[in-house]
Amino acid sequence: MHRVRVQVVEHILDANDTIAEANRLDFDANGVTAVNLMSAPGAGKTSLLERVLGGLDGIRAGVLEGDVQGSLDAERLATLHIPVTQIETGKGFGGECHLDANMVRLALQQVPLEELDLLVIENIGNLVCPAEFRVGEHHRVMVCSVAEGEDKPLKYPLMFRACELVLVNKIDLLPHLDYDLARFLLNLDTVHPGVERLLVSARTGEGVEAWRDWLTRAASPEAVLA
Amino acid sequence: MHRVRVQVVEHILDANDTIAEANRLDFDANGVTAVNLMSAPGAGKTSLLERVLGGLDGIRAGVLEGDVQGSLDAERLATLHIPVTQIETGKGFGGECHLDANMVRLALQQVPLEELDLLVIENIGNLVCPAEFRVGEHHRVMVCSVAEGEDKPLKYPLMFRACELVLVNKIDLLPHLDYDLARFLLNLDTVHPGVERLLVSARTGEGVEAWRDWLTRAASPEAVLA
Repeated sequence: MHRVRVQVVEHILDANDTIAEANRLDFDANGVTAVNLMSAPGAGKTSLLERVLGGLDGIRAGVLEGDVQGSLDAERLATLHIPVTQIETGKGFGGECHLDANMVRLALQQVPLEELDLLVIENIGNLVCPAEFRVGEHHRVMVCSVAEGEDKPLKYPLMFRACELVLVNKIDLLPHLDYDLARFLLNLDTVHPGVERLLVSARTGEGVEAWRDWLTRAASPEAVLA
Repeated sequence: MHRVRVQVVEHILDANDTIAEANRLDFDANGVTAVNLMSAPGAGKTSLLERVLGGLDGIRAGVLEGDVQGSLDAERLATLHIPVTQIETGKGFGGECHLDANMVRLALQQVPLEELDLLVIENIGNLVCPAEFRVGEHHRVMVCSVAEGEDKPLKYPLMFRACELVLVNKIDLLPHLDYDLARFLLNLDTVHPGVERLLVSARTGEGVEAWRDWLTRAASPEAVLA
């Protein structure tokens, strides 16, 4: 008789997590910081990227642009003369409402990682499913527009909990809305106490400097090594 | 020898469509008009319902309220003293980003259909998946806020094509946005030529009368029989 040795696999990763880990290894091997940028439709992800990606001091930035259909946002960002790669989930991915690790894996074949310090992965506009799928990113950032109302953290808590930075966008509209910013921040702290937040306006440029600084810090070589 | 008669089933319904049809039969048996109301998060579905459901002349209205988590919107609508039933997709439905026919079927057990003329099914805030799942509704209406930008019909064409009425909400913000309404309407007509649209503001009440009239017509006994 011989003893059977039972190997206990403690962390069983599902397929998405396994592929996300492969993406992460590729990012790390190339010294690239990957940021997964999420929001509801029309919250201002692309506008906030247009504001900063052209002027990051010493940081070579690129974008992986997720959309259900079309390449409108990719075309806007390409005018910044940075590498932009489009993923259309409506073509070959069943019109998925989020990016997953495998879509990013396939798209990475066309991303010149060796030429980048920072890759922003702009997710599909959706407050539900994108929060459930890691794609290998180092950081998760979300944009929430003040036009969406104060209750969003309570209604979509997984998304607000998944992020380490919340960009509260369109604050130039505050004088024209029945929106209680203090209540929003209270709701935010209820679901994710103390999460970092920046008040910004892609339209007027208010707060954009702090957003640029955040990205620059995240993508600095010291941050990647840490 | 005998001939085998091959029956050709022309319309094979999937499970969702089969259940949607059962819901539809229940609506029809009770003379209830069902409206599936969809939008991105924070576009103003609940606010636009608050504006009209309390004052529909001779129409007994109820709401089936879909959310991932919480019952904030249901509580707002319950103050109108109409029957409101909550579906939380985060409880028992895996946090789904849309309502499907089966969720509605289960919730209908708690909806007093025999006491209603109109049931509004307020879907999860999402511009992708809700358009893919019929729930037995007679009409599909969507809300699109001008704060979301002009490009949304081009980016989420399935949603804009699925609807027979588009409520263009928050038009009180137009003076404060870089938003080209004519361009939005052109984009809308590109993906769904001639679709009915109403310009409204839940905040100021502008256009709300036309929205109330639309619902009243949709829920009138003649409309149900037609």
